[in-house]
Amino acid sequence: MQALLFDGQLRLVNDYPEPILAPGEALIRPSLVGICNTDIEITRGYMGFRGVLGHEFVGVVQDCADRAWVGRRVVGEINAACRRCAICARGDARHCPERTTLGIDRRDGAMAELFSLPIACLHDVPASVPDQAAVFAEPLAAALEILEQSHIRPTDRVAVVGDGKLGLLCAQALRLPGCEVVVIGRHPERWELLHGLGIATARVSSLDDRRQTTDEHDEAYIGPSSFVLRPSSFDMVVDCTGQPSGLAAARRLVRPRGRLVLKSTFAAESGMNLSRLVVDEVQLLGSRCGPFAPALRLLDRGLIKVQPLVAGQFSLRHGLDAFAAASRRLKILLEI
Amino acid sequence: MQALLFDGQLRLVNDYPEPILAPGEALIRPSLVGICNTDIEITRGYMGFRGVLGHEFVGVVQDCADRAWVGRRVVGEINAACRRCAICARGDARHCPERTTLGIDRRDGAMAELFSLPIACLHDVPASVPDQAAVFAEPLAAALEILEQSHIRPTDRVAVVGDGKLGLLCAQALRLPGCEVVVIGRHPERWELLHGLGIATARVSSLDDRRQTTDEHDEAYIGPSSFVLRPSSFDMVVDCTGQPSGLAAARRLVRPRGRLVLKSTFAAESGMNLSRLVVDEVQLLGSRCGPFAPALRLLDRGLIKVQPLVAGQFSLRHGLDAFAAASRRLKILLEI
Repeated sequence: MQALLFDGQLRLVNDYPEPILAPGEALIRPSLVGICNTDIEITRGYMGFRGVLGHEFVGVVQDCADRAWVGRRVVGEINAACRRCAICARGDARHCPERTTLGIDRRDGAMAELFSLPIACLHDVPASVPDQAAVFAEPLAAALEILEQSHIRPTDRVAVVGDGKLGLLCAQALRLPGCEVVVIGRHPERWELLHGLGIATARVSSLDDRRQTTDEHDEAYIGPSSFVLRPSSFDMVVDCTGQPSGLAAARRLVRPRGRLVLKSTFAAESGMNLSRLVVDEVQLLGSRCGPFAPALRLLDRGLIKVQPLVAGQFSLRHGLDAFAAASRRLKILLEI
Repeated sequence: MQALLFDGQLRLVNDYPEPILAPGEALIRPSLVGICNTDIEITRGYMGFRGVLGHEFVGVVQDCADRAWVGRRVVGEINAACRRCAICARGDARHCPERTTLGIDRRDGAMAELFSLPIACLHDVPASVPDQAAVFAEPLAAALEILEQSHIRPTDRVAVVGDGKLGLLCAQALRLPGCEVVVIGRHPERWELLHGLGIATARVSSLDDRRQTTDEHDEAYIGPSSFVLRPSSFDMVVDCTGQPSGLAAARRLVRPRGRLVLKSTFAAESGMNLSRLVVDEVQLLGSRCGPFAPALRLLDRGLIKVQPLVAGQFSLRHGLDAFAAASRRLKILLEI
């Protein structure tokens, strides 16, 4: 079958062996697969993964021992857990130490004509949610994980650093409880969506160290509400940049006793001086995969706008072009 | 007056000017002052502080515009806040951005015959608490800050890395809700106190990377209960070592979704790779100064044992010897 794989370099192959149906698993024929920054990081060496890429998908179950699954349109959680260890027993299969992870860790991903996933990972897609929205269930679940991990108060002031794919989803999720949300980024051409949702925006340059020392209190937001971008003033700051410099910018914005959410994995070591976190008693929260059921409910209710995030759609055989486009643009989808 | 100060080097001087009583402040004659690791770090350049050292004290108010304070035996919070800014208005004076900090940041400390502190910082010492216990109010408050910041469940498994002064206080505080607590350290000669309190101990060598790879599941605790020291198994791990290696050891012990508490400030940058925190969704919690009133209640109730922590008592004029001793031993107290 055709598959897009990484074996030290990104390659499209036409003779990849079809997966064999394992007990408790389903063979899935994907319709759409999203390219995530993690996929791009993997092609740069992250996780040392070798195999078929792709973990954001919507597809149809092609084969399964439990025939009730066959033909159903599904999305799926990416962590395939052992379901036997103490961590699984505690109900936290997403952190099973024995887990494999779809297209990320010892499990071929969805950028192929067929792939396999445990049925315990699958979620039915409501009929009202089109494929182009359902394919966002995985990254939206990851955005909702912030609300799952930490109490977001309607009165909280929240900043999202990074206006990439994940930043735009996190901002939309964090807006839901009624918070003031500002997105800080480099791409004003992406901000119309945010302004339409009542989310303020600011240029990342307003966080430069030089600006801060000379003129730190007069950066007004560009956006629906015009207010001032003070350092150390946000209750929660989410770093969605995947860059150490983004984390440093986020650090400057969070107030004492505030929460700094680390949403992106990056291969580089961070040179962050942690003693400032101690002095300011900042809570640093690592955040990764999240709950699918509420993500599907929000897509069904139309409370999260994903269509404006789609920057392009490529067929699988143009997968290399798709990856090249994904490194510069918002969400690129692969049609399988 | 006599004072122990740091002006690039640690020096005892006999002609330091007496502090002038400022509005809203009290002049205090300290009886005992503890030497903290932060004091030692300051003599190595931390905070760039210049002035009289000392922030753990018990003493008697010598002068104050409000005469009701004169003659009272007090301990004191170390952060002198502006009481006007938005952060103070929110009730969080300990994080006032305008604050000075006793013996740490732009305010002379307590290792002198007299020093000054706002009366808003002062707490009366109960008559039943002797000076030798009251002088631990500040570090005990810092240990209690962990319970103030995070919900410690009686069923939590807690590890404290570091068996120094702060580690021994944190372990005692974390034991109070009924948790299993283990202290991991290098000083078995300090562990009798812990074993008597039902706190388990283990050698820090059991966390060495080499041991982990070959034999990671068979490290029994030395202590009252004998159980196994598994990596990634603790709900909360507190780093009290002040060393990047201690933080790395703590990181290995914490479970996915667990809490990693950073209790020590250190000048060095941490080389910690933060992307593992994201994958495991570990919460990293910076923790610093804490609440005095419960610290005094616990000392009054005898629930925290501080007498075994005292390793020596020196007069102020032997302050340099006291600092030399403090770098190798448990709590050294200065008699003023």
